[in-house]
Amino acid sequence: MTDSTHRLEELRWPDVEQYLETRASPTVIVPIGSTEQHGPHLPLAVDAFQARDLAEEIAVATDVLTAPLIPYGDANHHLEFPGTVSLSTETVVAVLEDVYASLAGHGFENIITVNGHRIANLPAIETAMQQSTERHPEVSFAAIDPLRLGISVHERLRDGDPEDGMHGGEFETSYMLARYPELVDEEAFVKESHETAPYQTVNLIGNDDRVLTPSTAHSPEDGDLGHVGDPTLAAPEKGEELWAELVADAAEFVESLGAADSEAADE
Amino acid sequence: MTDSTHRLEELRWPDVEQYLETRASPTVIVPIGSTEQHGPHLPLAVDAFQARDLAEEIAVATDVLTAPLIPYGDANHHLEFPGTVSLSTETVVAVLEDVYASLAGHGFENIITVNGHRIANLPAIETAMQQSTERHPEVSFAAIDPLRLGISVHERLRDGDPEDGMHGGEFETSYMLARYPELVDEEAFVKESHETAPYQTVNLIGNDDRVLTPSTAHSPEDGDLGHVGDPTLAAPEKGEELWAELVADAAEFVESLGAADSEAADE
Amino acid sequence: MTDSTHRLEELRWPDVEQYLETRASPTVIVPIGSTEQHGPHLPLAVDAFQARDLAEEIAVATDVLTAPLIPYGDANHHLEFPGTVSLSTETVVAVLEDVYASLAGHGFENIITVNGHRIANLPAIETAMQQSTERHPEVSFAAIDPLRLGISVHERLRDGDPEDGMHGGEFETSYMLARYPELVDEEAFVKESHETAPYQTVNLIGNDDRVLTPSTAHSPEDGDLGHVGDPTLAAPEKGEELWAELVADAAEFVESLGAADSEAADE
Amino acid sequence: MTDSTHRLEELRWPDVEQYLETRASPTVIVPIGSTEQHGPHLPLAVDAFQARDLAEEIAVATDVLTAPLIPYGDANHHLEFPGTVSLSTETVVAVLEDVYASLAGHGFENIITVNGHRIANLPAIETAMQQSTERHPEVSFAAIDPLRLGISVHERLRDGDPEDGMHGGEFETSYMLARYPELVDEEAFVKESHETAPYQTVNLIGNDDRVLTPSTAHSPEDGDLGHVGDPTLAAPEKGEELWAELVADAAEFVESLGAADSEAADE
Amino acid sequence: MTDSTHRLEELRWPDVEQYLETRASPTVIVPIGSTEQHGPHLPLAVDAFQARDLAEEIAVATDVLTAPLIPYGDANHHLEFPGTVSLSTETVVAVLEDVYASLAGHGFENIITVNGHRIANLPAIETAMQQSTERHPEVSFAAIDPLRLGISVHERLRDGDPEDGMHGGEFETSYMLARYPELVDEEAFVKESHETAPYQTVNLIGNDDRVLTPSTAHSPEDGDLGHVGDPTLAAPEKGEELWAELVADAAEFVESLGAADSEAADE
Amino acid sequence: MTDSTHRLEELRWPDVEQYLETRASPTVIVPIGSTEQHGPHLPLAVDAFQARDLAEEIAVATDVLTAPLIPYGDANHHLEFPGTVSLSTETVVAVLEDVYASLAGHGFENIITVNGHRIANLPAIETAMQQSTERHPEVSFAAIDPLRLGISVHERLRDGDPEDGMHGGEFETSYMLARYPELVDEEAFVKESHETAPYQTVNLIGNDDRVLTPSTAHSPEDGDLGHVGDPTLAAPEKGEELWAELVADAAEFVESLGAADSEAADE
Repeated sequence: MTDSTHRLEELRWPDVEQYLETRASPTVIVPIGSTEQHGPHLPLAVDAFQARDLAEEIAVATDVLTAPLIPYGDANHHLEFPGTVSLSTETVVAVLEDVYASLAGHGFENIITVNGHRIANLPAIETAMQQSTERHPEVSFAAIDPLRLGISVHERLRDGDPEDGMHGGEFETSYMLARYPELVDEEAFVKESHETAPYQTVNLIGNDDRVLTPSTAHSPEDGDLGHVGDPTLAAPEKGEELWAELVADAAEFVESLGAADSEAADE
Repeated sequence: MTDSTHRLEELRWPDVEQYLETRASPTVIVPIGSTEQHGPHLPLAVDAFQARDLAEEIAVATDVLTAPLIPYGDANHHLEFPGTVSLSTETVVAVLEDVYASLAGHGFENIITVNGHRIANLPAIETAMQQSTERHPEVSFAAIDPLRLGISVHERLRDGDPEDGMHGGEFETSYMLARYPELVDEEAFVKESHETAPYQTVNLIGNDDRVLTPSTAHSPEDGDLGHVGDPTLAAPEKGEELWAELVADAAEFVESLGAADSEAADE
Repeated sequence: MTDSTHRLEELRWPDVEQYLETRASPTVIVPIGSTEQHGPHLPLAVDAFQARDLAEEIAVATDVLTAPLIPYGDANHHLEFPGTVSLSTETVVAVLEDVYASLAGHGFENIITVNGHRIANLPAIETAMQQSTERHPEVSFAAIDPLRLGISVHERLRDGDPEDGMHGGEFETSYMLARYPELVDEEAFVKESHETAPYQTVNLIGNDDRVLTPSTAHSPEDGDLGHVGDPTLAAPEKGEELWAELVADAAEFVESLGAADSEAADE
Repeated sequence: MTDSTHRLEELRWPDVEQYLETRASPTVIVPIGSTEQHGPHLPLAVDAFQARDLAEEIAVATDVLTAPLIPYGDANHHLEFPGTVSLSTETVVAVLEDVYASLAGHGFENIITVNGHRIANLPAIETAMQQSTERHPEVSFAAIDPLRLGISVHERLRDGDPEDGMHGGEFETSYMLARYPELVDEEAFVKESHETAPYQTVNLIGNDDRVLTPSTAHSPEDGDLGHVGDPTLAAPEKGEELWAELVADAAEFVESLGAADSEAADE
Repeated sequence: MTDSTHRLEELRWPDVEQYLETRASPTVIVPIGSTEQHGPHLPLAVDAFQARDLAEEIAVATDVLTAPLIPYGDANHHLEFPGTVSLSTETVVAVLEDVYASLAGHGFENIITVNGHRIANLPAIETAMQQSTERHPEVSFAAIDPLRLGISVHERLRDGDPEDGMHGGEFETSYMLARYPELVDEEAFVKESHETAPYQTVNLIGNDDRVLTPSTAHSPEDGDLGHVGDPTLAAPEKGEELWAELVADAAEFVESLGAADSEAADE
Repeated sequence: MTDSTHRLEELRWPDVEQYLETRASPTVIVPIGSTEQHGPHLPLAVDAFQARDLAEEIAVATDVLTAPLIPYGDANHHLEFPGTVSLSTETVVAVLEDVYASLAGHGFENIITVNGHRIANLPAIETAMQQSTERHPEVSFAAIDPLRLGISVHERLRDGDPEDGMHGGEFETSYMLARYPELVDEEAFVKESHETAPYQTVNLIGNDDRVLTPSTAHSPEDGDLGHVGDPTLAAPEKGEELWAELVADAAEFVESLGAADSEAADE
């Protein structure tokens, strides 16, 4: 029997009961990714692995629990590429609301979603958090996304142009080289860019699109490779450094929640 | 009989037919607001009026049509305040999808949603645009929101602290003073601020929250006044200047769409 | 600042609070119309304007509030005509139930829907009222429709044949001539009639169809002009007289509700 | 093996195939009732039996088919009385749409719903017919209801006051005495009336309510007996005469459909 | 007036009230069948009649009530055959949940569904029972299906091969010969078999498929007759014997429920 | 870069494209488990691990692909125990239908669901397969469940009484001892049994309940330990033997599909 684990699924129910009873402000992290094409050089699991790894490392750093990974997300615009699996927006909302309701029912006071698949999952996550807050006002919901949380670290580490794009590009490839090099095909590294529509940006950092537009489907039949960005700028060190800072910042946030709750309890 | 109007509802069907047949890239703007409390000094319609006015002024500037205003949005977290009316997120999605489907069916090639009620409506608008794009790939969908579109103009005009907050504060009050002074109660101007949670901002400009959280309900029973921001910094001139720049920028965007479509048609 | 208004959206939340606290039986009127073709002579907004104007005039006459207009309804059978916008029946039900729930939550005791788009919206309104009554038994729900409320006044004022039809015909055109003459194209006045199916009537007054059938789609491609009725019989005076009597009768109904509530409270 | 039957469920599939292939305009009748209290003197099945019997007699008279009875309807406002079973409005819509879709798929050109449970089922039937018309434009949908179809015969036969009410009263009791006397408890005959709200009527014939309101729940705990009307005026002869005329009129309508279809086919 | 009946629909509400008040453990049986093709020799109603008859005979044997038959089920895979009517799985779930909720609300403590249409209805019945148990934990839900309940009696009586199939075959035809011989076309008796997929069985008794697969549609256009099994082995005596044993076993089960409830009440 | 993997998520899209193009009958396995209490001696992930491991081992044995694990299922009746996470039945159906639709769209011809959480997930899986078959008739759907597939091997290996129960008992504990001994708490091994209701069995092998009933919630507050069965009879060897046979049998089934498809293609 393991001495300790932070994975909810590896615990027995009396372990979870004890966790809930002994923490001032019990916290659980719910990772959600996507199973979708990331160009010819990266596997379909990039977003799922990012969500799972980020959740687990934050959990270890802060001594909280992670729920099992939801490996599928809203990836409709990638369905033209073989292997992509997509849930509809409303299915993602339903899954998250059910998971949140179960966890809230057990007494978790902080439920933090870690999203590995920015933009496309965010409307569903925001909808699920908003509706769940109405039903479980005693719970603090929050969502962490690498690009949102890591605005400044991305900008500091970046070698490429912000308009190169960020789907399977410099940073996601660096992360995969750091953690799953055996799944990366370096021979397939090609810079792939898309023309930007007026008033829009493919720099997903900082979320500075002045006008919002839906993700548009692309297709291998049009000659698209699937990714948008420049994997030739990737390096494992860049992935490690990015990750370390993301985990550190997220851990600081998670710890601030517990502190806030304790203070509130003190009043 | 009027010589001309840009309001869809004031046209007869042969007028709409003619509009659709004679434009290279027919465009329609769909305004959606919210009917929700904006503090003791502003009426419930602030978001609805912003959506409607912005839509109409862009339409006049670019010679396109506006659909009738959807005056209700997702305002659940304001329901504690008398008079607020809220649609659920899924109802907002349903309304938008039905409206988009009708307009797409008539042959409009650009359907632009103007949101007067930032953040809370955005998950629904993004969901509706994404799902509608899948069903109507021939249509370009886009959403314009004053705070997104007007990042730099807000920053330039601002006198207060970015963390003062932006619900019924400096800018919304300036707009109302400029356009609907008879509905503003200047005697009720009070600066009202909220403590910011860790990693978050009440500066809605630029959308720089590093962690996403649901809107939390507040209540007059807790002594909240309802708004977050500083109406004492408001001035009608500021409202006019802001509005002029928003309309000019939006018009430029709308015109770029037509141009992009024309170019595409030329190929 | 205005001295007084009956429009909910023009009030600030403390005004609404005061209204609710000082009335024996607080009442709000919810107008719902449709944005749909009304023949070549009338604009798409006829039903929306009727709902909004009737609601506002009743509100003024009885000193109650009106909620913002829902400008869209169930108009599927008109979608062949450019400009028509339709919500599905279930979307209309969802919108009304959400609006009713918000208003019931604030303490309105009478929620009266004014429908400008007879027949097609009625199944949705009846469904929404029935389901909302189960959830809010303390609220009195009612729906007013010009043709139902005004059976006798229509019969008294009518110059045409009852079987001429009533969509864009004698009465709707009279109302538009009285209120919005600049939106009426008198040169396009043509009598347009449809053959009546067995056991059915196009006399919408009195609702005497012996067999119910769904509205059937017509289309400009079949040569239909869109309206059914005789606009050449329209006159602004007829519109004014009809309207005055509708408002007077509706006001009497609204006042009877307050009285009934007061009596009940006295027991 | 029977020589002939008009009940779909008693046919084998090759019989149905033959029916469909040999008729110019194949017609099927779908009966829907309700299982709900009808006062202390009548069984719960009154509406179900009316729908089934009317459907079958029309089918025999016109040589068309009947589908199996849907014995449940929207009877929420009667749930306080033991034995009442209610489907939600949306469940009734779903059942009807599925049944209509199956029948339309087989090639029935006329699908006629016979409702035994007026008012409460009508919004659901109208919604289902409207939505099904959009999906199956080649099918003629219609709904027959005894009170709508039989306006004049009810008025001619009536001995009581139109405001006595019509749920378990003079006419429904007469029908049950004519057809199912063994299920009627004559010793429990009591006249039961309800006060009418302003602008409304309990005369369900002619549907002349000037204002629409939802059905309100009543309850045995308030001393209600459940019915509204005067069973002491009932007589089996009245039931037979009413029924004969309803069936004759309905048959005329059904036959007119076939004729209309034939003419259309001739063009 | 009848002295007694076990059919809920033939009772008046005071009868149902009395039934509920005088039983230690009030029980109601809900029959659900299907209207679907059963080969060229049997009518569409086989499953509906089985459900209704089994429910009624169990009710008589145990002195409990039956609700009206739901004559439609989930029969999508038979829609190619004329006359089949199918509800979607989610519609069947909705109907059952609404019926269960009404009955639970009246105080029935045991709600037993009798399914005449095995396999295809079971996922819907299981879903509805599971979800209703969560909402009505005080109610015991159970479902009886002839093939499940009658595993051993089928095996004992069977003359054919277990792999002959059981849709319109030896047993269903025997039941129909015993009860509704006038609806059976003996001249159309043909043995019809389907090749079994690997790891699967068409012996529906005992439910021994090692791998679950969806029902697959067949079609008269492919030369299918619709049934699977051997009607030439049918005999009315076999039907009577099967039925007697099913009713006896079911009655024993129903009585055990009452006993279990009584014991629980004694504690 | 790995030479080969059977996990869809570890492939790049051109790998998936190649897989689809080079196989006569492309097959993918979708594992679904549950995160739910399994007594004080086993972790919450038992069902999830069983689904994932069985899927992967079958995939390796037959050279087909596995989709990422869905770690959550319909576990409502276990929610009283800390840590259990449950999706509603309709959410499970939605997830499966979306996953199936994506995979069918890419051209997979056999989609095999491996369920690690018997009974409770089966209604959802059967519903999703049935509805997906209607939409994707070209795809063969099948579901494998250890208890169904392994009826005879369970019976052969069993040391305990069939009525001991099978949730966290002899077999699930043996599997966990064989594969994840570090997550098993042998000190917490206790035989836990439930009294069986009449006509029912807790022997989940063979599915011989003569009457179907919903899973009933139990609770630690009632002194329940959560599992039903006898973990003291568990042994890792038993787990290995069971597993080897399940994988071998499943592999035989999967290979028969490809063969069947090839034959069909040959015709």
